[in-house]
Amino acid sequence: MEQITVLGAGSWGTALAIVLADNGHNVKLWGHRADLIKEINETRKNEKYLPGVELPNNVVGFSSLEESVVGAHTMVLAVPTKAIRDVLRDLSKMIQESITIVHVSKGIEPDTLLRISEIIEEEMPSHLLRDVVVLSGPSHAEEVSKRHITTVTSSSKNMAAAEYIQDLFNNQHFRVYTNPDIIGVEIGGALKNIIALAAGITDGLGYGDNAKAALITRGLAEIARLGSKMGGNPLTFSGLTGIGDLIVTCTSVHSRNWRAGNLLGKGQKLEEVLENMGMVVEGVRTTKAGAQLAHKYDVKMPITEALNDVLFNGKSPKVAVDTLMARGKTHEMEDLVNIMENR
Amino acid sequence: MEQITVLGAGSWGTALAIVLADNGHNVKLWGHRADLIKEINETRKNEKYLPGVELPNNVVGFSSLEESVVGAHTMVLAVPTKAIRDVLRDLSKMIQESITIVHVSKGIEPDTLLRISEIIEEEMPSHLLRDVVVLSGPSHAEEVSKRHITTVTSSSKNMAAAEYIQDLFNNQHFRVYTNPDIIGVEIGGALKNIIALAAGITDGLGYGDNAKAALITRGLAEIARLGSKMGGNPLTFSGLTGIGDLIVTCTSVHSRNWRAGNLLGKGQKLEEVLENMGMVVEGVRTTKAGAQLAHKYDVKMPITEALNDVLFNGKSPKVAVDTLMARGKTHEMEDLVNIMENR
Repeated sequence: MEQITVLGAGSWGTALAIVLADNGHNVKLWGHRADLIKEINETRKNEKYLPGVELPNNVVGFSSLEESVVGAHTMVLAVPTKAIRDVLRDLSKMIQESITIVHVSKGIEPDTLLRISEIIEEEMPSHLLRDVVVLSGPSHAEEVSKRHITTVTSSSKNMAAAEYIQDLFNNQHFRVYTNPDIIGVEIGGALKNIIALAAGITDGLGYGDNAKAALITRGLAEIARLGSKMGGNPLTFSGLTGIGDLIVTCTSVHSRNWRAGNLLGKGQKLEEVLENMGMVVEGVRTTKAGAQLAHKYDVKMPITEALNDVLFNGKSPKVAVDTLMARGKTHEMEDLVNIMENR
Repeated sequence: MEQITVLGAGSWGTALAIVLADNGHNVKLWGHRADLIKEINETRKNEKYLPGVELPNNVVGFSSLEESVVGAHTMVLAVPTKAIRDVLRDLSKMIQESITIVHVSKGIEPDTLLRISEIIEEEMPSHLLRDVVVLSGPSHAEEVSKRHITTVTSSSKNMAAAEYIQDLFNNQHFRVYTNPDIIGVEIGGALKNIIALAAGITDGLGYGDNAKAALITRGLAEIARLGSKMGGNPLTFSGLTGIGDLIVTCTSVHSRNWRAGNLLGKGQKLEEVLENMGMVVEGVRTTKAGAQLAHKYDVKMPITEALNDVLFNGKSPKVAVDTLMARGKTHEMEDLVNIMENR
């Protein structure tokens, strides 16, 4: 039994707190909104993010970051990517001993083009940071909170740390595998949100399942093309954090990135969509970073680039999708062979 | 403009006849049921297989195989895999000049373990067979018949033949790519039906999208493992006829293999399911062949083997799925590395 702090009381942080609590650990769940934390402690519910789900008694909410981190040497970082730097800066002033950080966010920072584990290494003084681990895979929070079978991957530069996190989380419903390729795991997890937005757009425009399957297939190819060039193992993109996460995000109604894309396809403007969703849509920021990465690494990413034009340059979703589908290339292996050449 | 015969007036044969007719070709559509052919010619509809879809005037139905093949040097073979040998034997007695056969069926023959193109080469005298081409990919017939955007792959030992078929079918809605790896294309197309049945079972049992994504990911790994060992290119399984077709078959309500699995998961017996469906469920036969192939090539195919036990050895679907999900392995790259070692 360990003392673990989960930073971020949104749907994913709360669902992971439940998994850890089920495994007998004492979990402190931090959220910056005092009213939400009050609700969690008084009603044992987090109705906004996980409606209808009861929280175990060994999950205790905190709205003070300082109080929440007392006594924990392992912290789960489950805040939106935009908030990560601020939270880590505050955190580094509050702890004395080194900690292991498990991050579960999916994104790439625009402009710096850093992966989340790199941001963590940049913000945390090295004497306070033992290890960084990423936990990623096809895992809608709603299903995890209801103890539906879910499989995820734990990855770190230090495999002993990845295995330690595997042991903390692994149980009958929540199966944790390890993979040493942290670059591939982080890139796959982040970039699939771009393809999910695009898949939502094709659905919103009224295209069918055939078109969506083609989009997902090509989306995976462009993720693998970029990720391999960035140093990831091409095989990782065929695993849980690649194809697996891509499928679940593009085909499930639970996915907010898909839902946001769907509204865009139906004609809503980006500002309206983000306002209506009321939750963070990571794929929007990641699309900007993805288009920058495509340019930096000189990799063709037609879907990412088309979506970037839709989101930020006023391109019509229908024109973008029709252009993608009408590409002149006729030999499908070209795409795939490129991946392998980049190994 | 060419004269083309489509053998098989089910949903896929009829949808492909529409594509060819849209491209200006004269299409003779053969079906063995005289009442269906009469309906097609009199009402311009095939209500049982493609409800609500109007057939172009340059599609003409034939119930006489002999009459349907007159004047055609290209024939699309769209009959259930079980009927292929009989149709080819009849056909070979009726033609004098050599033909190109495009097959669009997805299966492996149990016991002989032959791919469809191999069956064709076995049944057709070589002086009557110019080329065999396979057309495969994520393509529900219902959507193709409604001219929704669809992408497929044309493959043959003779790339000139694959390109000829590409030109015949390619249009604005129906995009045809080429791939020289006929083994990989046929194996991917056939074996995805096994995973679709299994995905239907997990959905029928009430498991969620997370579990299904894990199943599809592992399903692709076992297909690629076997297909590579049989001589396919591992990259093909990341393309339209691999991941693409797998996704569409496992996640779309149009898929009859998924629907059959779904009923099995809800507790129906195999015999009841097949009776209720009223259409051929290729995955059932393919599962038997898949389990035989796993044994022959000494490849681990846990999903295929578990499904084989459910379909033919009375194993409970729930026990099978729970066993699959609880496998002891904890390092996800093992599966994937195996694929590459088999290249």
